[in-house]
Amino acid sequence: MNMQNTTETSGFAGRWVSYREEIKVLDATIRDGGLMNDSKFDDRTVKAVYDACVEAGIDYMEIGYKASKKVFARDRFGAWRFCDEADIRRIVGDNPSALKISVMADAEKTDYHNDILPKEQSVIDMVRVATYIHQIPTALDMIKDANDKGYETCVNLMSVSNVLERELDMALEMISTCEAKAICLVDSFGALYSEQIDYLMDKYLRYAKASGKEVGVHMHNNLQLGFSNTIQGIVKGANFLDATIGGLGRGAGNCPMELLLRFLHNPKYNVRPVLKCLQEAIEPMREELGWGFSVPYMLTGFMNRHPRSAIAWNDSPEKDDLVAFYDKIIVDEEA
Amino acid sequence: MNMQNTTETSGFAGRWVSYREEIKVLDATIRDGGLMNDSKFDDRTVKAVYDACVEAGIDYMEIGYKASKKVFARDRFGAWRFCDEADIRRIVGDNPSALKISVMADAEKTDYHNDILPKEQSVIDMVRVATYIHQIPTALDMIKDANDKGYETCVNLMSVSNVLERELDMALEMISTCEAKAICLVDSFGALYSEQIDYLMDKYLRYAKASGKEVGVHMHNNLQLGFSNTIQGIVKGANFLDATIGGLGRGAGNCPMELLLRFLHNPKYNVRPVLKCLQEAIEPMREELGWGFSVPYMLTGFMNRHPRSAIAWNDSPEKDDLVAFYDKIIVDEEA
Repeated sequence: MNMQNTTETSGFAGRWVSYREEIKVLDATIRDGGLMNDSKFDDRTVKAVYDACVEAGIDYMEIGYKASKKVFARDRFGAWRFCDEADIRRIVGDNPSALKISVMADAEKTDYHNDILPKEQSVIDMVRVATYIHQIPTALDMIKDANDKGYETCVNLMSVSNVLERELDMALEMISTCEAKAICLVDSFGALYSEQIDYLMDKYLRYAKASGKEVGVHMHNNLQLGFSNTIQGIVKGANFLDATIGGLGRGAGNCPMELLLRFLHNPKYNVRPVLKCLQEAIEPMREELGWGFSVPYMLTGFMNRHPRSAIAWNDSPEKDDLVAFYDKIIVDEEA
Repeated sequence: MNMQNTTETSGFAGRWVSYREEIKVLDATIRDGGLMNDSKFDDRTVKAVYDACVEAGIDYMEIGYKASKKVFARDRFGAWRFCDEADIRRIVGDNPSALKISVMADAEKTDYHNDILPKEQSVIDMVRVATYIHQIPTALDMIKDANDKGYETCVNLMSVSNVLERELDMALEMISTCEAKAICLVDSFGALYSEQIDYLMDKYLRYAKASGKEVGVHMHNNLQLGFSNTIQGIVKGANFLDATIGGLGRGAGNCPMELLLRFLHNPKYNVRPVLKCLQEAIEPMREELGWGFSVPYMLTGFMNRHPRSAIAWNDSPEKDDLVAFYDKIIVDEEA
């Protein structure tokens, strides 16, 4: 557990071999992984992840998206794109555990006034609002709505590597006034190096701490930096960490839970149930879903672009022609 | 190119979007990869790596080991375990390029007085001596021998994550008196986190700089930190960097060359020939050689152990039983 620049100074908590108690871990396996299969996980898989999270001592499980049925066709997407109360309860019952259940609500893609129930009718504990820079007012209204209904809230500002600094400052200033408990630094394209994480963490912490919020990190693995950038966030003071079992997630995937838990050194976490779930429920999906580091994802990371062109390339007959994708992406601005 | 704590201060070299001219990159694909196939690469593969290194602007290519034929059976190992002059010249001719050729000489496993020819009879440019902490006097004699014969020299102190601090200080003090141009920080077991890299880099730099040497880094990928720990070394001041194409190397493999070159921002480097070699010569070997991140390698990394038990597990019929390997390695001290 890495302790440089921690705000904690008491006792042994600032030492390498100790741990930082404030840190919370969120499992985003089903939510982020759902971007590789239109959220069509079978119940057995979702239950396996839930059981692993409970047994591993993980703090939050993000079980899917709360997407609008007006925007997303019910017959094209699986249950975990919508997270109806009955679907969640089929997996977690009344969730008699210390694990909190989170859902992600995308700005402009969520019918939040109708689809997010009052907390007393729901087994959901937290609503995480994901927003692009141009959707901040909508996101803030969504956070207020969820907060008023009784939920914990959190906000993920996406694609920060493509946001102009002046606008980022304005956005963080606005977000710092809202009810969210944490603001997440999100490297949507897996394009950031540690030095950039340092710079952005300083900025996020400045706004967050002044308004009593935590900073979270959500990192992608396009440059094989998903885990190390999460560590870098921790070193700088992030206390809200996203990871996924086996790194399952869009494109190159995420910070792997099995690596993160061991790093944290907190005895409440246990890596064995995560490995069991990885082996029995996650790895069997790898060939079909195709997440994880590969050269095309590296190249979209280099170019600071959405991975969609790499996802398409990896699904095409040319997938092994790495040089052709390289030539395409450096020639074609829209690749 | 990451510039924190660089010793360079002139012009733009200290800035993120610039680069550090002193940095040299060594390709260890055939040398380290040879630990996965007893150095049995065919000529076509070695030539593909050589051509890629030349075209990519890489500074050194480590073409194999200079192993003693008394210790290593000639019929069990391929040519690149011994690097006879005729074998090297079959690939590189008189090496009419800016690329320098390196060989690795392991302490106690090299018949260096006989097998390392005077420089004027060899196309080799550098001899890198690899040593465990208990072999330092032998290593220093090997470096002197190679230096006297006219070669550049470098020293890799292996398995530093298992060396007691008092002995490491003694070793670095001794090494700092030798003729080597660089001392390599080697994370043999892929067990180190960035904070540990920081601490060790400070120590290595203290000894190296006082004696006019550079510090190098050689990182393994057991915890998906091969690339990021190389970056961390650069941030701290390492100017001599090991990488391999596709990360090919023992167990979880090494820092991937294709990631490193792009990070460095030096216009003399070109990633396209590396991708071509990766596609045509390296990836076709992946299934048979089986290098790269996997959970068993992660677990030996966690335990700060040699990857041999994980290599054996990955070759066994139980390879997909991750929990069984976890149970084995935490129960069996010798796993």
